[in-house]
Amino acid sequence: MGLTLGELAVRFGCELRGDPTVMVDRVGTLAGAAPGALAFLANPQYRAQLAATRASAVLLDEASAASCPVAALVHSNPYARYAHIAALLHPEPPAAAGVHERALVDPSARVAASASIGPGAIIGPRCTIGERVRIGPSCVLGADVQVGEDCRLHARVTLGPGTELGARACLQSGAVVGSDGFGFAREGAGWTKVPQLGRVRIGADVEIGANTTIDRGAIEDTVIDAGVKLDNQIQVAHNVHIGEHTVIAACTGISGSTRIGARCMIAGMVGIVGHLDICDDVVVTGLSMVSHSISTPGVYSGGIPAAPAALWRRVVGRFKRLDALAERVTRLERGAHSSNRRT
Amino acid sequence: MGLTLGELAVRFGCELRGDPTVMVDRVGTLAGAAPGALAFLANPQYRAQLAATRASAVLLDEASAASCPVAALVHSNPYARYAHIAALLHPEPPAAAGVHERALVDPSARVAASASIGPGAIIGPRCTIGERVRIGPSCVLGADVQVGEDCRLHARVTLGPGTELGARACLQSGAVVGSDGFGFAREGAGWTKVPQLGRVRIGADVEIGANTTIDRGAIEDTVIDAGVKLDNQIQVAHNVHIGEHTVIAACTGISGSTRIGARCMIAGMVGIVGHLDICDDVVVTGLSMVSHSISTPGVYSGGIPAAPAALWRRVVGRFKRLDALAERVTRLERGAHSSNRRT
Amino acid sequence: MGLTLGELAVRFGCELRGDPTVMVDRVGTLAGAAPGALAFLANPQYRAQLAATRASAVLLDEASAASCPVAALVHSNPYARYAHIAALLHPEPPAAAGVHERALVDPSARVAASASIGPGAIIGPRCTIGERVRIGPSCVLGADVQVGEDCRLHARVTLGPGTELGARACLQSGAVVGSDGFGFAREGAGWTKVPQLGRVRIGADVEIGANTTIDRGAIEDTVIDAGVKLDNQIQVAHNVHIGEHTVIAACTGISGSTRIGARCMIAGMVGIVGHLDICDDVVVTGLSMVSHSISTPGVYSGGIPAAPAALWRRVVGRFKRLDALAERVTRLERGAHSSNRRT
Repeated sequence: MGLTLGELAVRFGCELRGDPTVMVDRVGTLAGAAPGALAFLANPQYRAQLAATRASAVLLDEASAASCPVAALVHSNPYARYAHIAALLHPEPPAAAGVHERALVDPSARVAASASIGPGAIIGPRCTIGERVRIGPSCVLGADVQVGEDCRLHARVTLGPGTELGARACLQSGAVVGSDGFGFAREGAGWTKVPQLGRVRIGADVEIGANTTIDRGAIEDTVIDAGVKLDNQIQVAHNVHIGEHTVIAACTGISGSTRIGARCMIAGMVGIVGHLDICDDVVVTGLSMVSHSISTPGVYSGGIPAAPAALWRRVVGRFKRLDALAERVTRLERGAHSSNRRT
Repeated sequence: MGLTLGELAVRFGCELRGDPTVMVDRVGTLAGAAPGALAFLANPQYRAQLAATRASAVLLDEASAASCPVAALVHSNPYARYAHIAALLHPEPPAAAGVHERALVDPSARVAASASIGPGAIIGPRCTIGERVRIGPSCVLGADVQVGEDCRLHARVTLGPGTELGARACLQSGAVVGSDGFGFAREGAGWTKVPQLGRVRIGADVEIGANTTIDRGAIEDTVIDAGVKLDNQIQVAHNVHIGEHTVIAACTGISGSTRIGARCMIAGMVGIVGHLDICDDVVVTGLSMVSHSISTPGVYSGGIPAAPAALWRRVVGRFKRLDALAERVTRLERGAHSSNRRT
Repeated sequence: MGLTLGELAVRFGCELRGDPTVMVDRVGTLAGAAPGALAFLANPQYRAQLAATRASAVLLDEASAASCPVAALVHSNPYARYAHIAALLHPEPPAAAGVHERALVDPSARVAASASIGPGAIIGPRCTIGERVRIGPSCVLGADVQVGEDCRLHARVTLGPGTELGARACLQSGAVVGSDGFGFAREGAGWTKVPQLGRVRIGADVEIGANTTIDRGAIEDTVIDAGVKLDNQIQVAHNVHIGEHTVIAACTGISGSTRIGARCMIAGMVGIVGHLDICDDVVVTGLSMVSHSISTPGVYSGGIPAAPAALWRRVVGRFKRLDALAERVTRLERGAHSSNRRT
């Protein structure tokens, strides 16, 4: 499907600098786009690629527009405009409404007529599936699951009993929502399993990445608020609460009963200890260990960059003797002090 | 289902302080329970919530019983008692015995009459499935798998060829047991795959979390002993051996051929190098790197708590120059020594 | 199936020291092998086990051959020879060619006659499946997927739309290839999803571990070159490029748009930041954070070994006050300097 730059400018509220009759029918990168494609420039790191672009037009902000060698669609938030235009130019292939003959829907479930249930999907008793929902192949929904309108489950997603999904939630393949939390009571030589009775409640517009796991609560629920975006292979333990619009990158793990505020940005491979309270607007950089509650918004770090191995070994050796080093400094200070008194 | 406090006290060996005819029919948290619910107090951190609880009764130990404003069920291990009572009050919905018409069971497999095989499950040649086993939807069992009585496989679990599961093992969704170990021999410019011929043997009462992976052995077997509890997204490489009643939290990875003793407690996101020997009764705290064998029981740590980013950057900068700092101290010590001799 | 040592020596180019008529019919470890088995010695760490082996023959190199108490098959690369012989002695059970009656293949897909499509597998529109490919139970292939000859997909693998697999690629259970990259544009209070339009292209002879995830590119493709070996639970973000014959161990995560060169060896639980360029022949040891590009081949480290908790606490306390310690040393140096001038 093609659109003129004039149509795009009007529809998406951009200022057009260039020929409004030029057509674009796809998106491309600044460096890789061929004529007919629309590129965008949002990260200043890539501005050097602007001069040589072969795109028919570029979406960018005012500051970059002057250097654009082709037609420019100017907007103060070019990346978000790009997201909307890309969705328009590259619509997903439609899914046929209805229940595939190889899906299995419990007779007590209610499935909206416009929903699409893929082959091999299994929908448990008393589930409700909203309008235009797409359930991919081989998904498994336990009993009493509620899926809000326009949700999208890719292939092989599991939703445990009682899970609630708000509207427009999107779950990637292999995600497991509602597995048992990890609760065991020590008894004798071993461990007795503590029944996990809570559910997982997920708000609207939430994204859940591939092979991410979210455990059901022990007694009360695990809660993911609206607008939260979770990347792949994230682990969310029982009774965690994640606030609105918080974004978490891949491979991060959050231990049980921790609360994370709204609008936080947690980078990849971060480990967050249980029973903490992280306030709103906290940024945590990659590979950090968060072992205490955070009550002040701001940026927190805990990762140490890798170094050449020989240097690293030396520094780690010193690190392990840091206590002794500090004591040597203390002795020197005492000596200097007495020496000063003597002179 | 409701029970009186009198019945519970008798059945679970608790001392009752309060009216034996009071009924409870569910569990709840101290803070969230309504009348009719039984709460528990096991973690002293929550003792402040006791005074205001609306639960009909609370399970707790002798030390806390005096401050309990409602009926008290007193036991020295209230959390384990809670686990048993919760299982009684909230029984899992029964699974219909038999093989679902959309399951596929190889004719050479033996399935106990009381077992339940869910829709989409695939049971390979010569498998044996014990009494009262529940195999969830879309599980895949390769050839020659043995599943002990009362095992529970949630949806979409994979068991590779020859896997053995002891009685009462519980596997969460997405777990993969018996995938090929990561073995490659360097040859010319590339790598030649080394056939992975061992199996995975899992003892009784083992829990395996969602999307956890356990590789089959290269020649001999990967072994998980009885009572081991593995959380979500754990990686267990080929030929690892984990001893009885060891508990491992989410996102931890164990490299090939490492042996972990009995009754260990390994926290989350710990990385354990290959070919190590960790003795019994070792505790490892979160985000630690275990790169040497451990022969003394005790607590080991390797994680550094995150700090505000500006402070962290300064400290990391110092860390990288730690070797130079130590040399500066050595020079000062030499100077102090010669200065002392001079005076 | 049994073979004589004479046949093995000829077929695999080894020098035989011993009776060529001795038969072996399986492989075993040095310590565990019984008569009839062939063992190997590749890691000098295990040389002590050679003397007591009960194997009928041992594959080893010239340096170890003299101490071999049984027949020896001598080769300069015994581990790679072992890999080939083990594959011959332990052939995988053949898969029946054809599409299982419980598989679902879109009429527009082309499946080679010698390919095997397992029960519950779903093959989307316009897929092409090469000769002798084995697609395991419950795999899901989206539209336009191309699978090269002799590929092996174990159970429950997902390949998103447009994925390309080179010949002989092997994917373990639960792997997800072609999930959406994690791309969101900030807009108002929340985040707008950026359509992920690229694909994943995977070269020949690539291994992908259990529950590993590889996201499709945002506009251009995510690319895994030939001969790359990825272990379990690895996360590869959108637009990453991994060069030929690079090997990556379990639980490592690679952020978006990073390029990793050829013949690299990345250990387990390493975190690699986005938009970096790692050159060829780089080795990264376990639990490292790679936060800067690397342009010099060599070994890089970033992990700190765990220590007894009491010691660790003290050292971490010192670590956090490292800046103050360095300033104390600076003050001492100034004092020593002025004191030297005074004397």
